[in-house]
Amino acid sequence: MLRLDLNRRRVVYRHLPTGAEGSEPFDCLLLATGSRPLRPQLPGIDSRGVFGIRTLDDAERLRRFIDREQPRRAAVVGAGYVGMEMADALRRLGLEVDLVGRSAEVMGTLDEEMGRLVSQAVRDTGVTTYLGQVVRHFEVAQGRVAAVVTDQRTVPADLVVLGLGVGPNADLAREAGLGLGVRGSVKVDEQLRTSEPGIWAAGDCTESYDLVGRRPVWASLATASNKTGRIAGLNITGGEVSFPGILQTAMSGVGAVEVARTGLSSRDVEALGIAGEAEQVAATTAAAYLPHSQAIAVRLLGERGTGRLLGGQIVGGQGAAKRIDTVAAAIQGRLSVADLIDLDLGYAPPFSPTWDPLLIAARQLAKRL
Amino acid sequence: MLRLDLNRRRVVYRHLPTGAEGSEPFDCLLLATGSRPLRPQLPGIDSRGVFGIRTLDDAERLRRFIDREQPRRAAVVGAGYVGMEMADALRRLGLEVDLVGRSAEVMGTLDEEMGRLVSQAVRDTGVTTYLGQVVRHFEVAQGRVAAVVTDQRTVPADLVVLGLGVGPNADLAREAGLGLGVRGSVKVDEQLRTSEPGIWAAGDCTESYDLVGRRPVWASLATASNKTGRIAGLNITGGEVSFPGILQTAMSGVGAVEVARTGLSSRDVEALGIAGEAEQVAATTAAAYLPHSQAIAVRLLGERGTGRLLGGQIVGGQGAAKRIDTVAAAIQGRLSVADLIDLDLGYAPPFSPTWDPLLIAARQLAKRL
Repeated sequence: MLRLDLNRRRVVYRHLPTGAEGSEPFDCLLLATGSRPLRPQLPGIDSRGVFGIRTLDDAERLRRFIDREQPRRAAVVGAGYVGMEMADALRRLGLEVDLVGRSAEVMGTLDEEMGRLVSQAVRDTGVTTYLGQVVRHFEVAQGRVAAVVTDQRTVPADLVVLGLGVGPNADLAREAGLGLGVRGSVKVDEQLRTSEPGIWAAGDCTESYDLVGRRPVWASLATASNKTGRIAGLNITGGEVSFPGILQTAMSGVGAVEVARTGLSSRDVEALGIAGEAEQVAATTAAAYLPHSQAIAVRLLGERGTGRLLGGQIVGGQGAAKRIDTVAAAIQGRLSVADLIDLDLGYAPPFSPTWDPLLIAARQLAKRL
Repeated sequence: MLRLDLNRRRVVYRHLPTGAEGSEPFDCLLLATGSRPLRPQLPGIDSRGVFGIRTLDDAERLRRFIDREQPRRAAVVGAGYVGMEMADALRRLGLEVDLVGRSAEVMGTLDEEMGRLVSQAVRDTGVTTYLGQVVRHFEVAQGRVAAVVTDQRTVPADLVVLGLGVGPNADLAREAGLGLGVRGSVKVDEQLRTSEPGIWAAGDCTESYDLVGRRPVWASLATASNKTGRIAGLNITGGEVSFPGILQTAMSGVGAVEVARTGLSSRDVEALGIAGEAEQVAATTAAAYLPHSQAIAVRLLGERGTGRLLGGQIVGGQGAAKRIDTVAAAIQGRLSVADLIDLDLGYAPPFSPTWDPLLIAARQLAKRL
């Protein structure tokens, strides 16, 4: 439908109502083609009752299906944050919900010791989890989905929601021969310039730079996408602004439990050959004697020898997730794990124990770096 | 009652039941004598119905007085966080409450533009505020307090609670001739050593170092006190650990509104002769379309020329206060206000707008530095 003509510096399009081809000239061009859901071609995936959820229209279609057809059993395929949040939402609507995922625990971007807490939080909402399982196909009866079949079991379902992640939508760039990066995303420099002069790219279609792992990565996160759009816009209009990179900070929640992560996970650390150590502590969100105080688990990762802070993960009650921002700021400020101990974090009994859980984790971790 | 004999390296005490004097030798000594409430000798301050609140016993005495005497009107004198929290607590018990304070707004450690939001939050709980007023004396009738008299009005009250702040309790150190610092606190170095070899001091009785203002200060904050105790203990037992200093990070709340601050205020900036700029933004704690999203005001201070981040203040709904930790970590990581814009802070609609309020404030402030 769309095509870049780099010689003529034109975007070529087809006018949908008439089918006529047209084109628009450009001096500067911004590619912001985003990402798209992964949808493996498994048998039965296109049958009635199987829903992807990408757009508001998708959500409305799903909601109408639920209202009209009154499904009783829903299976959510994919145990990342989208799958987890969908399972939570469907359960709140009163459906029986099974969550089927490939990773050992829900939220595979966390270390397993933390993911275990998330899996439990999912089960605490009444959702049944089938983890460490690979979906093979979907059973179909009278044109409608009837079950999700994994390598280990058959999970009956009148409704299936797919949350299998996303990939970059870089077709336009690839077809035009622009440089590509991780997972086929559009390669850009710090100013968001592509390999082709006059063409910038921003958002989910672009490659990012991992500030801790010091490597290109592809991530699909709203804040980074939004920021790169701003930077590209500033540069296209004559600015000279750079975007240093990301920590892949992300957060989500299920029931009353909040989940957040930033920087490298133990899996990342291992893949990068970094001498990493992790420390996980159980603490409370507020002074333990207050009735609203809730459990919080904090995991920090650091590098042996240098003492460098590599990442953090949090699972806990109300207010837990946004505490990841302190870890993100500490990483971007190049604080060591030992420096973290001296952070002057806020304390009052309703908001934190005297020693903030992050500081307790840092104290424990610093001893081993 | 207690005395230090530096020549004999002994702590001299009087045994209370017998009145006999005794002494205890020391090789190393830790002074942790804390702080004590300020209690100006105003006429009527010692009459029945006037309460200081320092210890748990004080709180229980106050609670017994309320239960037995059923006071109807309470006046809280002092509009810092103790006064504010006491006014809130007394109002919850059903009393009519007036809050009388010298500063123009409640929480004089914030800039007035932020303090105004706190004053309003106090009034929203049903407390009446009389601010910018100096208490002259207390009216007494039949030996009981009857009113607080300021330079501007008479505030009738059957119960008065004092929240006039605290000062260092450094009598022991002063009488022994140890070096003293700001407000007569015990002067210590980064290792928490006093001027006298073998004597350390920690906690509220000691002077602190302000990391942003780069000056000695005296503060009474639980986290710093707790940390200095740990450092002193490590050093007394043969360690060599330093405590770099503090940002005076503090937080409190009234009703459903949370309040936090860190680093320098506009008043500090002015007193230090720093070329400071402040930027205050109004945002929401979560994506604005979510029903639980609440107002949050963020104020950041930066230095013109250097772009240095100097401080931050937050007033807002649930989860607002702990966000000050991100500012504290950024200051301790020596991030500039412009660096702050690139922080990879967590986003998901239930927890934050796509652009975190701190980042919005940083973007605005960076333009003027």
